[in-house]
Amino acid sequence: MCHFAMAKSILITGGARSGKSAYAERRIAAMGGAPIYVATAEARDGEMAERVAQHRARRGPEWGLIEEPLDLIGALNRSDQGPRLVDCLTLWLSNLMFADRDWKAEGVRVANAIPALTHPVVFVTNEVGLGIVPDNALARRFRDAAGWLNQTIAEASDEVVLVVAGQPLKVKPQ
Amino acid sequence: MCHFAMAKSILITGGARSGKSAYAERRIAAMGGAPIYVATAEARDGEMAERVAQHRARRGPEWGLIEEPLDLIGALNRSDQGPRLVDCLTLWLSNLMFADRDWKAEGVRVANAIPALTHPVVFVTNEVGLGIVPDNALARRFRDAAGWLNQTIAEASDEVVLVVAGQPLKVKPQ
Amino acid sequence: MCHFAMAKSILITGGARSGKSAYAERRIAAMGGAPIYVATAEARDGEMAERVAQHRARRGPEWGLIEEPLDLIGALNRSDQGPRLVDCLTLWLSNLMFADRDWKAEGVRVANAIPALTHPVVFVTNEVGLGIVPDNALARRFRDAAGWLNQTIAEASDEVVLVVAGQPLKVKPQ
Repeated sequence: MCHFAMAKSILITGGARSGKSAYAERRIAAMGGAPIYVATAEARDGEMAERVAQHRARRGPEWGLIEEPLDLIGALNRSDQGPRLVDCLTLWLSNLMFADRDWKAEGVRVANAIPALTHPVVFVTNEVGLGIVPDNALARRFRDAAGWLNQTIAEASDEVVLVVAGQPLKVKPQ
Repeated sequence: MCHFAMAKSILITGGARSGKSAYAERRIAAMGGAPIYVATAEARDGEMAERVAQHRARRGPEWGLIEEPLDLIGALNRSDQGPRLVDCLTLWLSNLMFADRDWKAEGVRVANAIPALTHPVVFVTNEVGLGIVPDNALARRFRDAAGWLNQTIAEASDEVVLVVAGQPLKVKPQ
Repeated sequence: MCHFAMAKSILITGGARSGKSAYAERRIAAMGGAPIYVATAEARDGEMAERVAQHRARRGPEWGLIEEPLDLIGALNRSDQGPRLVDCLTLWLSNLMFADRDWKAEGVRVANAIPALTHPVVFVTNEVGLGIVPDNALARRFRDAAGWLNQTIAEASDEVVLVVAGQPLKVKPQ
């Protein structure tokens, strides 16, 4: 397989507050170019609004911003120059489910689009399946969907990194 | 220690929908021989029945099947030829607890049986202890028991692999 | 940076019942000297009292003991000789929150104290952020705080190890 014309794709996964976003920002910074933050979060409540504001403050003024809760393919293919940081896939999935979209079809579309991207992309996602089985069926369906999505994007990405206590652990390639 | 006559033993662990079973099937396929799927699941509800059917469809017709919710030692020692895939230890543990068996004694018996097995075995298990402490005491006891069982089988196995987003991460030997 | 005069610092993380404490004790034993167990647990209920007693039985009589639910800096700086095993940071955090202390300031103080320690230290902590998002806000705040504390102590420590099914996986340095 010939990789030289392909833009780099990286999946960063880990638990809540494990330092995934900060590590993703460092990877993006090392790529050069004017980076673009693709925010899938909608600031629906105070907790989320605060987290979005914190992330924004940490990133510098050189960052562009695309806020896109649903159309991730559109955000990846926009003509803006520079590497993209998608933060995060788990929220995107939850937005798709909430809007009653076909999340599985959307996930496959994104995975299929990765090899043709003209700019590097770093996806941030969450591990949500390493706790006790949740009581309610909706939470179980969500963690199954999130596990499937993580596998699907990991398979299509050049690199997968698990962040533990802020430290990166290379998962792919081994 | 002399390993040459010993059948290979592998423990595959990870979160829900992390791709553990698919990876385990690839490892089994690489071993050659007619593989045997040791299913510990009982299709007690619709969710579980659907999952069992999906796994069955993904495996090919060359796979044998032993359905055994409790007597794992018996399933491992049956005279059938070929490598065994035990899927999964966490369900086996939950079956033992539900049937009020001495799960600790059973776990030790399986661990002690591993070195003498005449066919390779791949155990699939779940990580359930990396979320917030569960509210109810039963869930806490289950995750403690699952953690103990994973340690016990890992100690007795030649190889331990953590699957993250479908990608294997070698844990033992380091 | 000059490391030769610095006492070794290690952070051991992992899920519940993953074998973190037993691994930490092996690391401490390999360091030589009379080890000191810094217990942050308060035996407030039967479950916890039982766990404390189990850990005590596993450690030998050569171990010293400091029971300190809140003043971790004090415990680290006490004049006793020998390496210290702090078990565990997550309980310490929960004690600080319960006592309405400024846990963030305390966490930063401990991290800043690490380079000046005159005895080696092994911190045990828990991963609590890899399950589904908890329903209640208090649990969400706790897992955010625990994630932050783990990152902060990991950054200041020489070595970070993730324990999976009793097996150590080196996270830092890579």
